[in-house]
Amino acid sequence: MSSQTARRIVLAKRPTGTPTTDCFREETYTLPEVHDGEALLRTLYISVDPYMRGRMNAGKSYVPPFQLDEPILGGAICEVVESKAPDLKPGDLVLSQTGWQTHAVSPAANLRKLEGLPGPVTMALGILGATGLTAYFGLFDICHPTSGETVVVSGAAGAVGTVVGQLAKLVGCRVVGIAGSDKKVQYLTQTLGFDAAINYHTDDIAAALADACPSGIDIYFDNVGGPVSDAVLSQINDGARIAVCGQISLYNLDKPDVGPRVMPMILTHRALMKGFIIGDYRDRFPEGVRALATWIAEGRLKWEETIVEGFDHTVDAFLGLFRGDNLGKQLVKL
Amino acid sequence: MSSQTARRIVLAKRPTGTPTTDCFREETYTLPEVHDGEALLRTLYISVDPYMRGRMNAGKSYVPPFQLDEPILGGAICEVVESKAPDLKPGDLVLSQTGWQTHAVSPAANLRKLEGLPGPVTMALGILGATGLTAYFGLFDICHPTSGETVVVSGAAGAVGTVVGQLAKLVGCRVVGIAGSDKKVQYLTQTLGFDAAINYHTDDIAAALADACPSGIDIYFDNVGGPVSDAVLSQINDGARIAVCGQISLYNLDKPDVGPRVMPMILTHRALMKGFIIGDYRDRFPEGVRALATWIAEGRLKWEETIVEGFDHTVDAFLGLFRGDNLGKQLVKL
Repeated sequence: MSSQTARRIVLAKRPTGTPTTDCFREETYTLPEVHDGEALLRTLYISVDPYMRGRMNAGKSYVPPFQLDEPILGGAICEVVESKAPDLKPGDLVLSQTGWQTHAVSPAANLRKLEGLPGPVTMALGILGATGLTAYFGLFDICHPTSGETVVVSGAAGAVGTVVGQLAKLVGCRVVGIAGSDKKVQYLTQTLGFDAAINYHTDDIAAALADACPSGIDIYFDNVGGPVSDAVLSQINDGARIAVCGQISLYNLDKPDVGPRVMPMILTHRALMKGFIIGDYRDRFPEGVRALATWIAEGRLKWEETIVEGFDHTVDAFLGLFRGDNLGKQLVKL
Repeated sequence: MSSQTARRIVLAKRPTGTPTTDCFREETYTLPEVHDGEALLRTLYISVDPYMRGRMNAGKSYVPPFQLDEPILGGAICEVVESKAPDLKPGDLVLSQTGWQTHAVSPAANLRKLEGLPGPVTMALGILGATGLTAYFGLFDICHPTSGETVVVSGAAGAVGTVVGQLAKLVGCRVVGIAGSDKKVQYLTQTLGFDAAINYHTDDIAAALADACPSGIDIYFDNVGGPVSDAVLSQINDGARIAVCGQISLYNLDKPDVGPRVMPMILTHRALMKGFIIGDYRDRFPEGVRALATWIAEGRLKWEETIVEGFDHTVDAFLGLFRGDNLGKQLVKL
């Protein structure tokens, strides 16, 4: 397998505002030799995620920035082609962080062998991977939902939002989703069983929330930020819990945004607001996977994927996240 | 004692913006009869507190609004003049919520007999009362300070701020106070042992913070809000904890203020922000009083009071809180 060439997408320039295709460049490159403890991988599925936008800036987001002219890294599902690591053999499927590359050589220590999944291998990037775990720990560890409480989820039709809403329903909450199209609103209420859903493009968000949340809002799981969050925060109850999971509406702004001050609302309602990343919960991943797998096995938890085919479509799939193209988890199949 | 007259200050009109003297009216009124289970009180000390501003609005703040033409209620230390309650006798000192009145008749159930204080009776309104407990639970229960962390306190020379800073020093933190005059800055560093203090009227807050907090800010105890908090939040570390205790800079605004959005900072730094009121910790008051009294007995915790004499000065003492007149706890002695 030596001197094999592969394709990868590198960061050509740091985006100002919304990323454009010229921020990325596809390269053909020669794969390095496989050393002891490493494996050569062929990528099967690439995960594109909103958080990657933060890593495209020079400053530190919650993860270190991507390097210019280096490949965009992130979650991927790969097949082992060649292995010099004792626990891996050709044909094994692994979860890697090799990102937007058709092939890569990776230390085995950075790979997790995928075995015993209760369904398609893509679950390892979605419902039983970072997506599902983000929903699980953000909702249960930060928000502590209890039966009868009202939970609002923004970005509700996205990868994390679809799971959060279902988990909140599982513990008996009233669940209201905020999403960006009538199709998504319909999906949330008719397929996932949300109690109500709001189209933030066409509805008066504050009025629709007041209507959908007659007892106020106890929990807000925020993937979006900005004016959507302003409307939600103005209707929180005393003791509200707010998990700050993402702020996709703000990622592409040139400069920091201003908005209504939230600290007076946090004070008046004795609310808790907490930001988190899923890595904070690494030690508890087995607990999360077990719980999610159980609900899936019981038929009580659905998951949704939007899969585009072809490595050539990776950049567009990523850009589509900011247009709201995806329903559930956005993946690229190679 | 029947048909005795007394004086009280009522809310004459709800303030728009900064309260003015014409929002209040002094009245002479006839004290009601003392019924079984009640006591007639003579007020010795009145507590004036920033949170009372919120209760002067019509809408609910974190406590119900004051009623128009009814007395301003709040913490006071009183002497029992007449008692029809089994546990109270004339001469007993009690903590009451009878507020801005020279005398009042109160159910004994709303009174706490003051016994065994390790110093002056005013401690019951300050360091061993709501003030000290607010500092204790806000700092320890929300912020979990550990040795070596950097703690910033706004409103640092106020009733709560002076205690918060000292408690943080007790557990080995670097403590930086933000206050409104050079005299206060000097008091914080020279008398209370803060590591640094910033005059927000004259210093460039952001630059002064960067200077005073070379390792960033791990904990922010906020009594003030607004631009002071904007500067602090822009310098928080990963895992920062923010206790929202007060927002005095915003209480007198006509309409909600805007400012830099904080949720992206909360997310990026996986920070926790929590609003609270001291009533949330009622069940744990004995723990707090015990801890504070121990530190006082050991000579490791100082407290400061600004006492004005004369019931006639009650309104002005309250208005002075917003001018920053007070150092430590502001009281009125009758």
